[in-house]
Amino acid sequence: MTLRKDADQIIQSALKAAQPDTAVRKALAEADFGAGKLVLVAAGKAAWQMAKTAVDALGSRIDHGVVVTKYDHSKGPLGDSVQIFEAGHPVPDENSYKATEAAIEAVSGLTASDTVLFLLSGGGSALFEKPLIPTADMDRLTKELLASGADIVEMNTVRKRLSAVKGGKFASLCAPAKVFSVVLSDIIGDPLDMIASGPAYPDSSTCEEALKIAERYHLTVTEQMRTLLSTETPKSLDNVETHITGSVRQLCMAAEEACKSLGYEPVVLTASLSCTARDAGVFLANIAQYHADTTKSLAFIAGGETVVHLTGKGLGGRNQELALSAAPGIAGVKDAAVFSLGSDGTDGPTDAAGGYVDSATAAALKGQGIDPFAVLADNDSYHALEKCDGLIKTGATGTNVNDISVLLIKR
Amino acid sequence: MTLRKDADQIIQSALKAAQPDTAVRKALAEADFGAGKLVLVAAGKAAWQMAKTAVDALGSRIDHGVVVTKYDHSKGPLGDSVQIFEAGHPVPDENSYKATEAAIEAVSGLTASDTVLFLLSGGGSALFEKPLIPTADMDRLTKELLASGADIVEMNTVRKRLSAVKGGKFASLCAPAKVFSVVLSDIIGDPLDMIASGPAYPDSSTCEEALKIAERYHLTVTEQMRTLLSTETPKSLDNVETHITGSVRQLCMAAEEACKSLGYEPVVLTASLSCTARDAGVFLANIAQYHADTTKSLAFIAGGETVVHLTGKGLGGRNQELALSAAPGIAGVKDAAVFSLGSDGTDGPTDAAGGYVDSATAAALKGQGIDPFAVLADNDSYHALEKCDGLIKTGATGTNVNDISVLLIKR
Repeated sequence: MTLRKDADQIIQSALKAAQPDTAVRKALAEADFGAGKLVLVAAGKAAWQMAKTAVDALGSRIDHGVVVTKYDHSKGPLGDSVQIFEAGHPVPDENSYKATEAAIEAVSGLTASDTVLFLLSGGGSALFEKPLIPTADMDRLTKELLASGADIVEMNTVRKRLSAVKGGKFASLCAPAKVFSVVLSDIIGDPLDMIASGPAYPDSSTCEEALKIAERYHLTVTEQMRTLLSTETPKSLDNVETHITGSVRQLCMAAEEACKSLGYEPVVLTASLSCTARDAGVFLANIAQYHADTTKSLAFIAGGETVVHLTGKGLGGRNQELALSAAPGIAGVKDAAVFSLGSDGTDGPTDAAGGYVDSATAAALKGQGIDPFAVLADNDSYHALEKCDGLIKTGATGTNVNDISVLLIKR
Repeated sequence: MTLRKDADQIIQSALKAAQPDTAVRKALAEADFGAGKLVLVAAGKAAWQMAKTAVDALGSRIDHGVVVTKYDHSKGPLGDSVQIFEAGHPVPDENSYKATEAAIEAVSGLTASDTVLFLLSGGGSALFEKPLIPTADMDRLTKELLASGADIVEMNTVRKRLSAVKGGKFASLCAPAKVFSVVLSDIIGDPLDMIASGPAYPDSSTCEEALKIAERYHLTVTEQMRTLLSTETPKSLDNVETHITGSVRQLCMAAEEACKSLGYEPVVLTASLSCTARDAGVFLANIAQYHADTTKSLAFIAGGETVVHLTGKGLGGRNQELALSAAPGIAGVKDAAVFSLGSDGTDGPTDAAGGYVDSATAAALKGQGIDPFAVLADNDSYHALEKCDGLIKTGATGTNVNDISVLLIKR
């Protein structure tokens, strides 16, 4: 029971640290906006929540604001000076363009003493977009690119040049005003030029590459498009200060802190776990076996996103599979537990966020005639964990920064 | 090149520490045999080499010796007082029984001031055996057990009671003489009652269990067998001192020391790695990614034995697959390397012991039009590694204590 209590406490702490509001509050604590104008622009699936936190913290200090989020993601007005838009995702629509136009207008004519507080989260590529070419041309190009076999980097190299805001161009439009950018990362490794297509981050791709890609994949390129593909994106942005926040790395660090305060000696192994869920579980159990004789309480933490190969018809998710896979291996290790969960509170098509197992789980399953290996072969981790109190349920958490897996050995 | 040099040095040090002669020499350094008689008994696949080291170290201090190893595993006489037998493996034969009989004779009539130096290695279950029932009965029982679906623990519970030496009984035969036992472990976790069926280790199974197993699987049990199944095996052995040595744990510790002396800060993750080779490689690469910005040189070490699922028709082995799987993941990490090898010098059906990749390997493969993922799907790691100097070749090493995998990050 103590182990499960520790696990729950670590989960709560980590999820709290990964909340958009915690993330924004933390970033704002370091901000000094001086005496000039302050314009708020928030884009992405967490835009409303991030903007709400900023409005709560800064109040009337915000002169004007534009928020664009996904349909049904606004939870109400944020005061008279903040315009709220809902728009298309994952495919941009007229509302995306209208909202982005409003944002561009809001940051026009600012001076060097003014600041744009730019709050960015996942989904921004579609929600925050204004094409520089006619919509019909853009639609055709998108179809051609998808059919061409071009990879995501190649697609973005072309699309950034045809957009008014992507690839660092939004930050250029803000200049000479400063841009204080808070990015809630939902991509492992936090590639700032990829998250929402990097509206406030220097672009490393070149015109030469863009033109080569157009040629290689035989894209239909109008005269206007050729001119745009030949126009360079910003290679440095002196007016931007970026705070990456709420990333899986932060999730791991928060878990690390929570483990420490519970008396564990924590080790973060990785923030980019990407192997199969089952093998990650076995690997963590193998680590537990090596430390079976430890006299200190230990915690091993891995953030990232594992993979599941569907071979069966059961119910489960990658985090539940990871935990269940560790159960046989930690059975012989005194007071050990492995738990894993998705930070958004959803693991696979289930109502659980993830799974928890400890030294007693394998025996508890055996006592009910359940063979964990057979369960895994049928991808039915949910029902097995349900029968030994191994489901973690958090409900929707309001954030989404990948998964976290933890091995605890308590002494 | 420096990284490869470091890897080669770590490999040499680890393999040296896992040699049977190193292991025996180390154990003997702690021994005090007093003034009584000293009888040497060596059994298993490494028996000759272990006995040779003992004879070299102790010379005429050994009063009498019996060595039993696999056919073609003796490399010559070890002096007038040492009898050498070669016998059947994995199925015991008449020579196994003859040799074991000779060993029993050699330890008969000893006193409390005498010592039996017992050198045990893998394969001892077949090589060191004397059944207490007629051979025909034993052969029939073995067939029945194999056909019954009984697991290895159940089989051993029965067989230990029908043997004169298994399950701690050899040590009982040596009493009141002391037994100084040196065990070269080839089973992960070093289960002393399993290695060579534990001739000098207390047995935890019970008569009740043995009789139940005979009933459950409808074994043909003669009156003599029933008496033996009802006879308890030793539950404690006061005259035995055991030194486990040459295990995969020692392989890891030797690698740890070698890493330290090369300036790395080493962490042993596990000595019982058991997940798939590919996912172990990806996991190690994920760990490398997290430490990409480290300012200290780091080494992560994992011992054990991974698994390969054969889906293709290529050439390779689990260690080569593990290394190749790590190549894409460490490509973005400066001066990182992953290598993995079998301590016996053989990986799969190849002439390589394992594989080596570093930060440059993925690009080197791409330059030759080789896609590591396609190669892995065809289980053809050997040919891909061959093309980028990624094969580790050691030749036969004379030991077999599982595999070792290492991630290096050099700063």
